[in-house]
Formats: sequence, C-alpha cells, structure tokens
Amino acid sequence: MSWIEDPAFTPDAPFGPQTLPYGVVPGGIAVRVGDRALPLRPLASLFGERLAPLVTAPTLNPLLAAGRPAWSELRAKLVELVTATAAPRGAELVGLDGAVLPFEVADYVDFYSSRHHAENVGRMFRPDGDPLLPNWTHIPIGYHGRAGTVVVSGTPVVRPEGQRRSSDGPVFGPSRRLDIEAEVGFVCGGPVASRLSPAKAVDHVFGVTLVNDWSARDIQAWEYQPLGPFLGKSFATSVGAWITPLEAFSAARVTPPPLGNDVLPYLVEDRPWGLDIRIEVEWNGVLVSRPPFRTMSWTFAQQLAHLSSNGATVRPGDLIASGTVSGPERDERGSFLELSWGGQEPVAVGDAERTFLEDGDTVRITATAPGGNGSVVGLSEVVGTIAPAVSEG
Amino acid sequence: MSWIEDPAFTPDAPFGPQTLPYGVVPGGIAVRVGDRALPLRPLASLFGERLAPLVTAPTLNPLLAAGRPAWSELRAKLVELVTATAAPRGAELVGLDGAVLPFEVADYVDFYSSRHHAENVGRMFRPDGDPLLPNWTHIPIGYHGRAGTVVVSGTPVVRPEGQRRSSDGPVFGPSRRLDIEAEVGFVCGGPVASRLSPAKAVDHVFGVTLVNDWSARDIQAWEYQPLGPFLGKSFATSVGAWITPLEAFSAARVTPPPLGNDVLPYLVEDRPWGLDIRIEVEWNGVLVSRPPFRTMSWTFAQQLAHLSSNGATVRPGDLIASGTVSGPERDERGSFLELSWGGQEPVAVGDAERTFLEDGDTVRITATAPGGNGSVVGLSEVVGTIAPAVSEG
Repeated sequence: MSWIEDPAFTPDAPFGPQTLPYGVVPGGIAVRVGDRALPLRPLASLFGERLAPLVTAPTLNPLLAAGRPAWSELRAKLVELVTATAAPRGAELVGLDGAVLPFEVADYVDFYSSRHHAENVGRMFRPDGDPLLPNWTHIPIGYHGRAGTVVVSGTPVVRPEGQRRSSDGPVFGPSRRLDIEAEVGFVCGGPVASRLSPAKAVDHVFGVTLVNDWSARDIQAWEYQPLGPFLGKSFATSVGAWITPLEAFSAARVTPPPLGNDVLPYLVEDRPWGLDIRIEVEWNGVLVSRPPFRTMSWTFAQQLAHLSSNGATVRPGDLIASGTVSGPERDERGSFLELSWGGQEPVAVGDAERTFLEDGDTVRITATAPGGNGSVVGLSEVVGTIAPAVSEG
Repeated sequence: MSWIEDPAFTPDAPFGPQTLPYGVVPGGIAVRVGDRALPLRPLASLFGERLAPLVTAPTLNPLLAAGRPAWSELRAKLVELVTATAAPRGAELVGLDGAVLPFEVADYVDFYSSRHHAENVGRMFRPDGDPLLPNWTHIPIGYHGRAGTVVVSGTPVVRPEGQRRSSDGPVFGPSRRLDIEAEVGFVCGGPVASRLSPAKAVDHVFGVTLVNDWSARDIQAWEYQPLGPFLGKSFATSVGAWITPLEAFSAARVTPPPLGNDVLPYLVEDRPWGLDIRIEVEWNGVLVSRPPFRTMSWTFAQQLAHLSSNGATVRPGDLIASGTVSGPERDERGSFLELSWGGQEPVAVGDAERTFLEDGDTVRITATAPGGNGSVVGLSEVVGTIAPAVSEG
C-alpha cells in the first residue's frame, strides 16, 4: 500500500499512479495524485542533479525542453516515490486549487482532424457542395491560433464582442453564437527540430491535455474568408491544468479510421498513433456529448510531421490541438454548433433548452483512456463559465 | 558637430540622429548610428536607474514591456548622447554584422490591408467574382502566423517542401512558386492590454521594421481552404534587425485612402495613422518595385484596435505585419505573384527573367519615410537569399 492512502489514487481511478500528470501550483511544479497534488520542489534532491533544476523551475518549460530521456527518468522516479510505503521526507500533499497555466505556450496550432466535424460544418456552411473539401483527406488541415490567450481551466470566459453580419450591414456587439470545441491538445518538447517523421515526432510530444477552443460562430462566419478564423477564436482557448505524460497512453493506442486514399510518404506512420480517449462534455452539469477521440482521422504524429515538413521548427512549449472531436452519432458531437445543427435543433440541458452558450453557463470537459491491466488514465478537466460581455457586465 | 563624425549619420541620411533604431549585436542592445552600432551596455549608467536594466537586457523585450514613457525618456537621452560633441566614456562603435533577432516574438499576426494587393489576388484566384470580398472594407482582415519561425534579416531561406496539386493528385516536393511579400511590421509593447481604441493602440507600438513574409504559392493554394494560410507561410518570415521607434515617424503621417464605406465606431481614428513609408524591392540587386505604404487602407492603430476588440490581449513582443504592400501601378506591387501576374508575365531582373524565386536569388527590401525638416527616416533592410531545398541541397 502506498503512503498516499486515497481511493482516488488507485489504478482503478483516473488519477492513480498510472497517470501522474504534471502541473504548477502556488508551491511550484507538482504531480497530481488522485484529487491532490504533490509539489516536487521540497523533494528535488531525490531526483538527482540533472532532474532537480527541471522540477524546481517556475514552469514546465525547462522540463519540456529536456526531452524524452529526462521525461522517462523523472516519471520512473516519480512512480517509485508515490508507490513507496513510506512518505519521503518533505512530501506534503496540497489541494488542486490554484493550479496555473503550467507552461508558456510558444506557438499554438489548431488542427481540423475529425472527419465527422469537418463534414458537419461543410453540410451546414456549403449545403450545395461536397461536405469535405478535396485537400482534407491528403493534409491534416490546420491553422495558427493565438498563443497569448491560452488560459488555464477555470478561467472565466468573457463573452467576446465583435463584428457580425446583420440585415443592416455589419454591426459590433456581444457574440450571439458562442460555442465550444472539445479537443485534445499535445504539448511539445525536446530539442528544436524540423522535418520530423511521424515516428520522430512522437519524441517531441511531452504530454496530453484537454482543450476547449471557445468559438464565436457569428464573428467567425463574417471574418473567415479568405484567411481563416481569427477573432472568432482568439479571445480565449482553455486547457487543462494538468498535463498527462504521453507515456501513460501506451495501452490506449488504436488505428485511426481509413482516409479512403493513400497518404504521401512523409505522413505514413509505422505504428499508428490514434488514441482511444473517451471525452465527456457537460453543459451546466448535464452530460450532453461523448466525443470519441478514436474516430479522428489524423494523429498528432502526422500533424507534427506535416507542420514541420516545410522546415518549420517545433519548439518546447508548442501546443497542437486536434480540432473538434466529433463522432458519427449526434450525441458524440464536440461543438454546440453541431449538436444544435447551427442553432436549429435546441439541445436539452436538464430542464432547459440551449442552442449556443448563455451568460453564466458552465462547460466542463473530461476524458479517460484505457491504461492497461484494466486501469484507466485520466485527462484533467477543462472547465469554464461564461461571463457577460464587458459592455453588458 | 557630433562626436560621431560620419556622413551616414547626418539628418540627410536615413540612419542619422532622427532615426536611432534599436537592435541587438553580440555586445548586447545597441542603437544604429549611420552604418555602425553603438552598444548601450557600456553606457548603462548614463541612463539612470530605471532605464539601465532595460538597455543591459539580452533582448529588447524588457524595454518593450516598459511602455511609452520609458521609450520617450530613453530616446531623448540617446539623442542628446549621440549629438554631443564629446564621446561619452565607454562609447565604442561597432559594425552592424552579427545583429540577431532583437526581440522574442510573442504572437505574430499578418494583416491583409492593401486594397490593391487584395484585389490583384482576388482577380487571379477568383476571376469570375468580385475581386474584393464583402468583409474587406469593414474589417482589417488578418490571421495568426508562426512566431517561432520569424528570423532576422540575412538568415538564408531554405526553399520549403510541401504538398501541392498536380495532374496526378497531390505530390510532395520543393515549392516551385516561392515568393516574397514586402510588408511593414509593428513591434508591440507596453502593459498587457485589450479592447484598445485606435488612439490607445498607438501607445502599444514600440517601433517599426520591414518584413518579408516569404510565401510558397503552390503549397498555399492547395492547403488554404477553409482555414487559411499555414505551411505556405510558416517556414520563414524575415524581419529587419533594427527597430525604428514609432516616434521617428511623426512627420510621415498621412490619411489613408477612403474605404468607400463608414467603419464601425471601434475602428474610427481621431487622427489617422497612415504612414508615408516608401519601400524598395531589389531582386538580385535590381530594383523591381517601389511599394507605397501610404496606399494601405487600414492603419496599424486600426489593426490593433480590431485584434484586441474581442478581449484578446496585446503583449510585449507581439508583432503585427501590414500585409503585402502593393500600390496601383505594376511597378508598385509587393509580391512576385502580382509582378508576374501569377507567373504569366515574366519580370525583367537585369538581363534575366523571373517569375518566382530561383535558388541563389537574393531579395533586399529597404524603405525610407519623411523625417521632418527635409530629413529622412530609414527602416533597416530585410534581406534573404534562397538556399536549395533540403532534399536537393
């Protein structure tokens, strides 16, 4: 029995010793054990000269930069430490409250790798055309988002204002079609590198976190041609406070669904990196969707291979998000745009009905994946509550 | 007569005492005086307690964060120092070589604010439609680029590889339509802020630099729908090594050309911030274009007001670029795509002809603006030479 006696810290629980995600609490870098956090600074001397500076840094960035061998060594030592029968000297468990954004985001790229999502959006916005554009099955389509407005789970999301179409021409005001996008994010690290094969790309991914890519659909619809989404997305992107190491997902690997055509050699994986991450979306406490990440067509390894194929470098702190995760069923859609079919089919949220987000609404996204031997690996929640627009607050 | 006796450091010369751009050389932060640099570290004690740490930092970022009052105070002291008759103790002029990227880029946003450029591109790519999309005269259209691949002038640009269309379906290989975009960049600073009026936005701009937003048109054409440019741009964006303070441009202000419709109140400027910056583009030493920045329809103040209108924060180190600067005349176009009309009309480059860039080609962009009292303010060159693609090098 571990010195951490806690039913939330067993292999059956999502944050047992098989998971051990990293975050930053007021006491510095910590590892999540069940529903508490173990700050590592007081234990730094246990990790040796090479690792100690990485766990005493103010953010995870130095650890991200250290690369796979350091990540594996630290994780192995942590497993030993948290499963020991006696607490190490200086160990003190603290609450999860107060966790901050655990790393400085370098570049943020958002992909668009769910066929069901892309087809749903295509059907709504281009009803007369093919729901999928011809490049989609050949390229992991993506774009750069705003790194400076990535915020940690729990940060209130102020309803954005912006330009939207009206029958009297463009008007400026609070978004009326505020939406979520339930996504999975991959936090990059290792040496700065470019032109990565999918196999090499894997060593540049430190860990996994949930992402809510808040989206103002009315702002987006008016602005996005021809250069893509901008202010419809840039007001806030929420990420989980705890980054689950990629190593925890080895039992969750699956083969992604076929694209229907061959991909070019630079995108071919030797071992596929689809992941059986099961997402749940709660709207004001009501479970409204279960997006299945295993249905995504492009993997993070392919996404990183693609984004670095032109010579662009991948840096520690780069964040890539999967794009909205939507499965084939209605109750597997990862955005309210899709769930309400563009606002035409209201969604039952307990006794209420919703199309898009109202002020005061709270969205909570959680996920688990198989951890091997019947265990389950957790991804920390990403939660946010809508605050009124500044002009109305 | 100043102690800096140099014909390149007079009010008639672009880098005289009216300009004083900042950069970082191997000796630290420096100010450009004529064709040499004056490192500030040895002179730090002359600037006082508040400013000294800003000029001894490894990058300009702390100075960017310090805000307008510090920028003005430092500039006033520098003017005094470089125009004094006696050299201050410790002053030593060094060459401009070895200047590095002078600041860490936070977020990089590229706008699209030249009507002529937008119309030229529209005519080429959507020959049957209106050359300008309906949102263009209401919104300073823009998108996020890759901050991690912004490089300093002089950095070789390796020809990117990527996916492009072919008659046999998509293929991967070196870009065949490698292009430039001559732009003006604005380096942001001051306190982190959002929802800026155009007037307030001005105080969040530290200085101005030239930008070459290298573009692979074949990669871009295949990838850009529906989320905008990505790998066609992300391999490299070159910026000048020396940032000319915004204060140097007070005599260069002009009113931008009319948009043809009213703009919404959040974009209305009380005093317009168009700038009479005269750009020159040299291709292998031959002047091929003179893009006039005064023809741009949206100002940097409007661009910053727009990008922060949804609550997005502007941070020190944010870089916003104007978009390709193209005037109404053929020899005022800021991209080779436009100069060669999509490759159909080769451009005379001395005795040679060109459509897009060949390996070994060098592009040099320079600019000046009126500095008042007959003086001229310079923007440091942004230069780059094309290296062969990695698979062919």
